[in-house]
Amino acid sequence: MTQVSVDGHLIGVDIGGTKVAAGLVNAAGEITFQTRTPMVSNDAAAGLAAVVSAIDSVRADSNSHSNPIAGIGICAPGPLDPRTGIVINPPNLPGWRNFPLAAEISKAYCIPVRVDNDGNAAALAEALWGAGRGYRSVFCATIGTGIGTGIVFDGRIYHGRTGAAAEGGHNTIDYHGPRCGCGKLGCIEILASGPAIARRASEKIAKSGKASTILDLSGGRVDRITSEMVGKAYAAGDVLAKEVLQETAELLTVWLGNIVDLLEPDVMIIGGGAGAMLRPFFGEIEERLPTWCVNSHCQEIPLLAAHYGADAGIAGGAALCR
Amino acid sequence: MTQVSVDGHLIGVDIGGTKVAAGLVNAAGEITFQTRTPMVSNDAAAGLAAVVSAIDSVRADSNSHSNPIAGIGICAPGPLDPRTGIVINPPNLPGWRNFPLAAEISKAYCIPVRVDNDGNAAALAEALWGAGRGYRSVFCATIGTGIGTGIVFDGRIYHGRTGAAAEGGHNTIDYHGPRCGCGKLGCIEILASGPAIARRASEKIAKSGKASTILDLSGGRVDRITSEMVGKAYAAGDVLAKEVLQETAELLTVWLGNIVDLLEPDVMIIGGGAGAMLRPFFGEIEERLPTWCVNSHCQEIPLLAAHYGADAGIAGGAALCR
Repeated sequence: MTQVSVDGHLIGVDIGGTKVAAGLVNAAGEITFQTRTPMVSNDAAAGLAAVVSAIDSVRADSNSHSNPIAGIGICAPGPLDPRTGIVINPPNLPGWRNFPLAAEISKAYCIPVRVDNDGNAAALAEALWGAGRGYRSVFCATIGTGIGTGIVFDGRIYHGRTGAAAEGGHNTIDYHGPRCGCGKLGCIEILASGPAIARRASEKIAKSGKASTILDLSGGRVDRITSEMVGKAYAAGDVLAKEVLQETAELLTVWLGNIVDLLEPDVMIIGGGAGAMLRPFFGEIEERLPTWCVNSHCQEIPLLAAHYGADAGIAGGAALCR
Repeated sequence: MTQVSVDGHLIGVDIGGTKVAAGLVNAAGEITFQTRTPMVSNDAAAGLAAVVSAIDSVRADSNSHSNPIAGIGICAPGPLDPRTGIVINPPNLPGWRNFPLAAEISKAYCIPVRVDNDGNAAALAEALWGAGRGYRSVFCATIGTGIGTGIVFDGRIYHGRTGAAAEGGHNTIDYHGPRCGCGKLGCIEILASGPAIARRASEKIAKSGKASTILDLSGGRVDRITSEMVGKAYAAGDVLAKEVLQETAELLTVWLGNIVDLLEPDVMIIGGGAGAMLRPFFGEIEERLPTWCVNSHCQEIPLLAAHYGADAGIAGGAALCR
């Protein structure tokens, strides 16, 4: 794929299993318009039509601006091949098997199109326009339902041999640990993602039988606890919620120690819903990092909150065609 | 430091706590002459003199060749700064604290001098002239008393922010695990290096009370078992030795799974004494890799034995000034 001009506006598209979000992004990485439409996951043509419809809404808005659309970039569920823009076999989009997403969208609009996974795209948006601006090497983690990561060197996503690199969320820190959906044992995703936070809170409450604001928020149902409830309870001063988040922060410290020892990036950025919830613990992570890291300069590496929140996919998509 | 011409021969120097090895290396990475002299570890000037003496021996030999010396490259014990060539505070060379090694050697010979740690230098030698030749991204592990690693992208060592990256040997895969000399718990070095192999064998023998060739080799002394004895016993068909090496290979598989998920290199290379001993298990590691790796292409990445053996430091040093 050729280098895209950045004179015009960019369209960023974020495809999930249930929705498509698309937005207009200017050269400064600001999202000036956005829209959202349901995704059709089990039919290739209908799924494509949903994406096209979202892009059309953004283009209609962009017609009111003087700048042309310079490119369309898409965050899509992996596995996918960022070099060809082919979506391989995403578990939550069963209708798209070896689907040439970039080629189909490019054909529809006669505009360069790039496709990558959300971890990589979010990292690029942060590096270009967000918390990683001005840093040459950026490690970015999006902690939500899973843990997606991306590595950016000198403004370019590090893809590895086939485009499947930077799966830092599946770094095993406890090979005796619980099994992740990915098949590995004790990777950081199964230990410290949103569902892991909820699970640890549920277990603690079930075991201790202690009162907790978390349980009030879940209507007394241990099986209905979510990470959001843990976050809210922590904000309300709940002791057990604090304990759970502190443990999660320590696990993330072990993991970031591994990342720093291997990559020694210029900056580390944490985003995502659960990532935002852990923000009060960033100081503890930085303080504890030397315990889990041989790098004597590790505390010089800033640990920053992501600039983009729920819009990371749109910004990330746009960043791909910057 | 400026790029060094490669018209002449290169001198590679490998500094350890007790010896200095130096050699003449041609443009094809062949070591055509080498020498070895004792190192003085507790005195800065005497240590420097030992290194100069080793280099002088090599230069004396090189006078018989027509090509000039194009550069001197040195593998030195870390921590060090490869950008400035300053050795910071190596535990096994207490005489050198913030010692400007590159500048001192460069002054003595009026020749460009580069300094790096052994893991990085060995990786570069493998990438340029050894098992990694022809691959764009190379991950190389040297498994001996410790586990040193290096990452090479497009013929250049990946150094990270301050030159302290690629410490893959301290990747924690069991945060509940035993404490390594580096301070971290359950990093691969404390689990799978030469001493770890010896320790696991000793523990198994002490616990089971079973006969083993390993024990014959150690004169019946459990506390005198070395990894070399485990290797010899395995070669002689010892069951317990096989078990120990197989477990070590499985731990290395967990670790390499992490490396592939993050870096997805084009090739993985294993060297060092214990690494060579584990060569019969490379097939098992490759077979088991998908269990510990989310990358669906992981089995396409060759796992190769290092080209350089005990000479890796000399070749690595020379590679630095290539």
